[in-house]
Amino acid sequence: MLEVGGETLVLTHDMLVEGVHFLPGDPPADVAWKLVAVNLSDLAAKGARPLGALLGFTLGEADWDKAFAEGLGKALAAFELPLLGGDTVSAPTRTLGLTAIGRAVGPVPARSGARPGDLLWVSGSIGDAGAGLRILKGELRPSNALVERYRNPRPRLEAGERLAPLVSAMMDVSDGLLLDAARMARASGCAARIALDSVPLSDAYLALLGEARLEAATAGDDYELLFATNAAAAPEILALADEIGLALSRIGRFEAGAGLALTDRGAPVPLPATLGFEHG
Amino acid sequence: MLEVGGETLVLTHDMLVEGVHFLPGDPPADVAWKLVAVNLSDLAAKGARPLGALLGFTLGEADWDKAFAEGLGKALAAFELPLLGGDTVSAPTRTLGLTAIGRAVGPVPARSGARPGDLLWVSGSIGDAGAGLRILKGELRPSNALVERYRNPRPRLEAGERLAPLVSAMMDVSDGLLLDAARMARASGCAARIALDSVPLSDAYLALLGEARLEAATAGDDYELLFATNAAAAPEILALADEIGLALSRIGRFEAGAGLALTDRGAPVPLPATLGFEHG
Repeated sequence: MLEVGGETLVLTHDMLVEGVHFLPGDPPADVAWKLVAVNLSDLAAKGARPLGALLGFTLGEADWDKAFAEGLGKALAAFELPLLGGDTVSAPTRTLGLTAIGRAVGPVPARSGARPGDLLWVSGSIGDAGAGLRILKGELRPSNALVERYRNPRPRLEAGERLAPLVSAMMDVSDGLLLDAARMARASGCAARIALDSVPLSDAYLALLGEARLEAATAGDDYELLFATNAAAAPEILALADEIGLALSRIGRFEAGAGLALTDRGAPVPLPATLGFEHG
Repeated sequence: MLEVGGETLVLTHDMLVEGVHFLPGDPPADVAWKLVAVNLSDLAAKGARPLGALLGFTLGEADWDKAFAEGLGKALAAFELPLLGGDTVSAPTRTLGLTAIGRAVGPVPARSGARPGDLLWVSGSIGDAGAGLRILKGELRPSNALVERYRNPRPRLEAGERLAPLVSAMMDVSDGLLLDAARMARASGCAARIALDSVPLSDAYLALLGEARLEAATAGDDYELLFATNAAAAPEILALADEIGLALSRIGRFEAGAGLALTDRGAPVPLPATLGFEHG
């Protein structure tokens, strides 16, 4: 964060590496969209309105680069995001970076602000992008809705801006709901308890995978908002959900202590070996 | 550029790729310094005062990464530059990016503002870093001063801030004086004429290479400021040079037309085949 002329700026820089964050066969336009979306998702979690971006681009094969540039143009236009500058270099491995800069509209939530007694919430639905990735790998039967969630994630900018004044902590869910919730709990010095049966699933997910909530809660690339509020804020959060037309689901609470605990319809569930996707 | 709260922000993002912009054997701390310095040199050319930076870093071998982090810490401290964020990823090739953000103190010069009749100037001395690189390659006998200019370039922040209100165009010299002057002429829709005999050389350079001005003017990594002013501004520029203790040398002028012309003691000199270093 940076204070300039009475404004609070939020800056984020996320990178995508070929072979690590995307595959050589992924459509370049989708890689461009994701590069923009993952950075704007970070701004959304800070309640910031995007002002512009800078691109770090490694030149490679001309057709790929052209398709990437077209996709980037569309993504920037979709979010009305001016490209303010950047750098283009030769490199043996595609390594793309985007810096996004935003203006905080109100208070800027940290991930470390949750307190014992706070409620834990998540926006939208969880697991769709992970299922979309499995579909693209040929492991599941096709569903356009789920593949779309994987390829073209929608950063929750409006929700983030509206939630920022109401939350005690907020972050985006990028590496898996359980992993990111554990990170919020650790940063806040609390324990988190999540009711798996309350993790929101989309109709498309349910139609394909049924109530596979543990799979959904450990899959990555959701780009939903994970946030904490005090218990008294619940009616306000639910009213906001109605107003902006986006589900905001209460999925657990914070308690004194440390670590993450899971329940399913009230019964304890052992933690899975992997809570999410630990990027390099 | 970005207008926020009545302030003009200048943002820059430059990348360094191993094997392209630096060698695997280069000291990691020098790579870190250069990554910071090249970005701050861009801010200097815009007359902007640095406010902070974001780092995009590819993890590699632990000792290298540790030495890089230490060097980065020293460079950030030297320029009192807060690290505002960034991303760390796994990647097969070291590809480092830095975003620097600065606040314009006055007007923000473009490289496209030179007009026929304007004078062309450069700060400091030219060719030192290029000679430093040749020393490191074993092609010339050692000179600490020249190697230091290659390894630890000093962005001309104070000069840039003071010059910004006085110039019609400004940019930094990173890829070779002739190449960058040709770029300024093209962007400005003018021709540029450079008197090679007026290109400023350091004592260390002269001691090692004599008056090899064409070599100096086509070597890269100077990180000096190249700027245009109208002819009437010359006394003010020379007074500023005295005040800040940095040479500001008049090396040519802009004319109607296009392209770059060279002279040496008044006689035309053919353009060399290579004007500088065209990065990928």
